[in-house]
Amino acid sequence: MIDLLALEKSLISPHVKEGGTAVDFTMGNGHDTLWLSRAVGQGGHVYAFDIQEQALESTASLLEAENVSNCSLILDSHSNVKKHVAGPICAGLFNLGFLPGGDKSITTLADTSLKAIHDGIDLLDKDGGLLVAVYPGHAEGAREGELIEQMLSEYDRRQICCSKFKIINSPSSPFFFLIERK
Amino acid sequence: MIDLLALEKSLISPHVKEGGTAVDFTMGNGHDTLWLSRAVGQGGHVYAFDIQEQALESTASLLEAENVSNCSLILDSHSNVKKHVAGPICAGLFNLGFLPGGDKSITTLADTSLKAIHDGIDLLDKDGGLLVAVYPGHAEGAREGELIEQMLSEYDRRQICCSKFKIINSPSSPFFFLIERK
Repeated sequence: MIDLLALEKSLISPHVKEGGTAVDFTMGNGHDTLWLSRAVGQGGHVYAFDIQEQALESTASLLEAENVSNCSLILDSHSNVKKHVAGPICAGLFNLGFLPGGDKSITTLADTSLKAIHDGIDLLDKDGGLLVAVYPGHAEGAREGELIEQMLSEYDRRQICCSKFKIINSPSSPFFFLIERK
Repeated sequence: MIDLLALEKSLISPHVKEGGTAVDFTMGNGHDTLWLSRAVGQGGHVYAFDIQEQALESTASLLEAENVSNCSLILDSHSNVKKHVAGPICAGLFNLGFLPGGDKSITTLADTSLKAIHDGIDLLDKDGGLLVAVYPGHAEGAREGELIEQMLSEYDRRQICCSKFKIINSPSSPFFFLIERK
């Protein structure tokens, strides 16, 4: 059976370059931040965003326990990525939706997600990639997914390649977009 | 950049079991037949279908040159798969569209493709998988893709998992479905 998380990782991994700059657009508990920080290595850097203090605290603890020091944890909306990251970036991850274990009334919002993805694409280096996981099991998530697809379908394919992987007979299951700059 | 053929192979490979029975539903020049025959090994068997004599001739030559003897080449529509294959099968491949280098007026037709996919799913063993590549660059291909998606979206996800991978900002590019029995 398809392992969605493993597939996501296998598709974004080739973009995460040692020594590069990567962005975790949805820090949450920091597991992706940690994964990116190891992949870019000591010569690289990871910027991680969340609007919840709790996310920064969990992530800081995790990174400290793992002896990782190449990350900047930023308490701001990922839609402000350009205020904090000059780019170019080799890779970025979005896990849209809830902070696992956190306040379920706080979800990523479609408008800020769209701006963050748009700006993330602007920041992408040649051969860079973004992975955007969508959770359509709640109304805002489903709307987010539709708006993202609409936005991505308008990019010029000669510069940006936007793919989608979805389990089509399980509409509420997570799915993802892969966005690659040529 | 995404390599669609490599991704297809990586997703169907875990299903192609050594010693198993596999089906190449669209033999063409036999390259997938050869690939499947090597993956199932001498203890396994591959049934390959095409309605064009030319396809059987090319494939027979290729298999002979490669010293492969575990394949049955069948001159019949893949929609008659159940007449030739008892099952269960571990894997099956569809490359819908033209025979490369062949008569471009002969394409797979949506109705027979749908029946072949439906029957292929019936034949799937537990943990078996089908990979269906669609070429929507011509009208029949685009229609085929829509009808396949409609059919697959109705399968009970507790038994069959149907995924789709598509480059969303390049509507005429090939895309594929992965169909897995639980």
